[in-house]
Amino acid sequence: MAKRIESTPKADGFRMPGEFEEQKQVWMLWPERPDNWRNGAKPAQKAFAAVAKAISQFEPVTVCVSPAQYQHARYELPSEVRVVEMTSNDAWIRDCGPTFVVNDKGDVRAIDWDFNSWGGLYDGLYFPWDQDDLVPQKVCEIEGIDTYRTPGFVLEGGSIHVDGEGTLLTTEMCLLSPGRNPDMTKEEIEEKLKEYLNLEKVIWIRDGIDPYETNGHIDDVACFIRPGEVACIWTEDENHPFYRQAQDAYKTLCEATDAKGRKLKVHKLCLSKEPCYLKGADTIECIEGTLPREEGEVSIASYMNFLIVNGGIILPQYGDENDALAIEQVQAMFPDRKVVGVRTEEIAYGGGNIHCITQQQPRG
Amino acid sequence: MAKRIESTPKADGFRMPGEFEEQKQVWMLWPERPDNWRNGAKPAQKAFAAVAKAISQFEPVTVCVSPAQYQHARYELPSEVRVVEMTSNDAWIRDCGPTFVVNDKGDVRAIDWDFNSWGGLYDGLYFPWDQDDLVPQKVCEIEGIDTYRTPGFVLEGGSIHVDGEGTLLTTEMCLLSPGRNPDMTKEEIEEKLKEYLNLEKVIWIRDGIDPYETNGHIDDVACFIRPGEVACIWTEDENHPFYRQAQDAYKTLCEATDAKGRKLKVHKLCLSKEPCYLKGADTIECIEGTLPREEGEVSIASYMNFLIVNGGIILPQYGDENDALAIEQVQAMFPDRKVVGVRTEEIAYGGGNIHCITQQQPRG
Repeated sequence: MAKRIESTPKADGFRMPGEFEEQKQVWMLWPERPDNWRNGAKPAQKAFAAVAKAISQFEPVTVCVSPAQYQHARYELPSEVRVVEMTSNDAWIRDCGPTFVVNDKGDVRAIDWDFNSWGGLYDGLYFPWDQDDLVPQKVCEIEGIDTYRTPGFVLEGGSIHVDGEGTLLTTEMCLLSPGRNPDMTKEEIEEKLKEYLNLEKVIWIRDGIDPYETNGHIDDVACFIRPGEVACIWTEDENHPFYRQAQDAYKTLCEATDAKGRKLKVHKLCLSKEPCYLKGADTIECIEGTLPREEGEVSIASYMNFLIVNGGIILPQYGDENDALAIEQVQAMFPDRKVVGVRTEEIAYGGGNIHCITQQQPRG
Repeated sequence: MAKRIESTPKADGFRMPGEFEEQKQVWMLWPERPDNWRNGAKPAQKAFAAVAKAISQFEPVTVCVSPAQYQHARYELPSEVRVVEMTSNDAWIRDCGPTFVVNDKGDVRAIDWDFNSWGGLYDGLYFPWDQDDLVPQKVCEIEGIDTYRTPGFVLEGGSIHVDGEGTLLTTEMCLLSPGRNPDMTKEEIEEKLKEYLNLEKVIWIRDGIDPYETNGHIDDVACFIRPGEVACIWTEDENHPFYRQAQDAYKTLCEATDAKGRKLKVHKLCLSKEPCYLKGADTIECIEGTLPREEGEVSIASYMNFLIVNGGIILPQYGDENDALAIEQVQAMFPDRKVVGVRTEEIAYGGGNIHCITQQQPRG
């Protein structure tokens, strides 16, 4: 029903659409592991449920759940959310899930990248990651979507953003990290992206803001809001921990042109005033092979990690002084979409946010 | 997406269609447990794959597989078969799966009966059965089909056959067994069936042929082949172990009228000449709580346990002298369908056959 295809999306006339293009549904995984999520993942589960509920105002949501958590997830999630059994190693479907591509006839296919837990045996975040790596195939089997496999090429969905018209945004910190594709040159990696996502141009930002977790995914730093326009994190506070990265990214984007030769319009998006400090680290199980967690450590909390859905934006909120400003700025970027804020400190404690825990499937 | 409905199918204008009505797809589970299937379930898996392949000539098939077996099942099954993750306690989706109902507008819903492993703590075949009991909900969530739940009412799909026009066939041996609904009278059980399957008449056959496994499911004894016509097992050999049951069932059916007042036309279907004797019982793990298995014990092998699909019949074959006769007789009953025989001793060793391991979803 869902077949493996041996060619490449570009050869077959498929491209990755922008996140702002029409979607069929959003996929999520259910958080569970007590060595990553505090208090047995119960607070995180409620935050994930709130995100699912927010998205389901706009379009269908499918949440994939391990057999052990199936009944509980079904109980916690609103009835309009579809719940299917799927085993995973954690809950970051943006990164381990499929990347969908479309053609002009409305067909949808997907790319099933190699996934290695953000760095494999070099600096990956947990071991093993075998079940995460099966997620794209399982999703696509359910949907009857054919897949391209990229054996030996590691990529996470959170490390890329596209405009759907031939341009990709990414970071050198992540894609050139020794834990990803150490035997490939920057040019070879670009070629691979161009062939699989159907691109003409890759815009490289140097650094992301979380070197030790995702190695600096772009989805905490910048994104396309429509062709020719991007959003970028911004602060003028020199003491903010992400000041340099924000300034650098903004400068790079302001100087960049896209695949169509357009100079990008760059929208500024604030950072939280206060960092998000981990609370309750002593309720996170300590397991050999996972990143140890310390009370008060900084959790990466970027407003940039929002999800675009049909008619809406699902935006992280942290109880921070800048929460309202972030909503205002994002609403100004997307005048035709309704911005819905969801409190997501619990997701940030686990290492990501709304964009990291979702994967949109285009309508095609 | 898939909701629980509090009313009943009859109240909402839904009925269970005959198996011979148009189908959307067939569901199966993947056999795995080494305490039921010989040789680590490997031979059974090949037989299940052969059944899935045979069905997929006629219509889509989805096979549900535990996380541990996902990759192996994907490898063993042809690519046109959809494979989805689903945990279960064993592989009998006819009995633990949903019973689908349809209305005149083409809507499809399902009944999620209580399942208790063919007798619960009274004479059930294994413990626990919690994952089996979740199968209907998981199937219906994937498909977005609303379900009726019957708390406290136990039923297996293999214990009933309907004509889609108000008549049901079943056995007293099973439905009145103390392991099912011991606090209900025969009349109360009839009422429940009428309310959930939208019936006017229940035809009771006394005994099935496997008192110790399913407590005599009807699907080894008789079935509707179209409204007004049934098939029934038949032998004239007084020494055949199922002689009395076949004669009794045939007589009951010949004397019966259906919900529309029609006298039934009864077609005879042969039994295998030789019983199917279990081989390799010593490769079946011995676990407390499951039925112990002995070398040479009789495995129930009825040609009646076939599946009707769109344009086809998938018929068990045992390497028996009567295999060809069974094909000939079934082909005569279904002149417009292609009869495909599949060797299924390995499924019989596990306690059932093609009808037991499949569940058709009507097109609606």
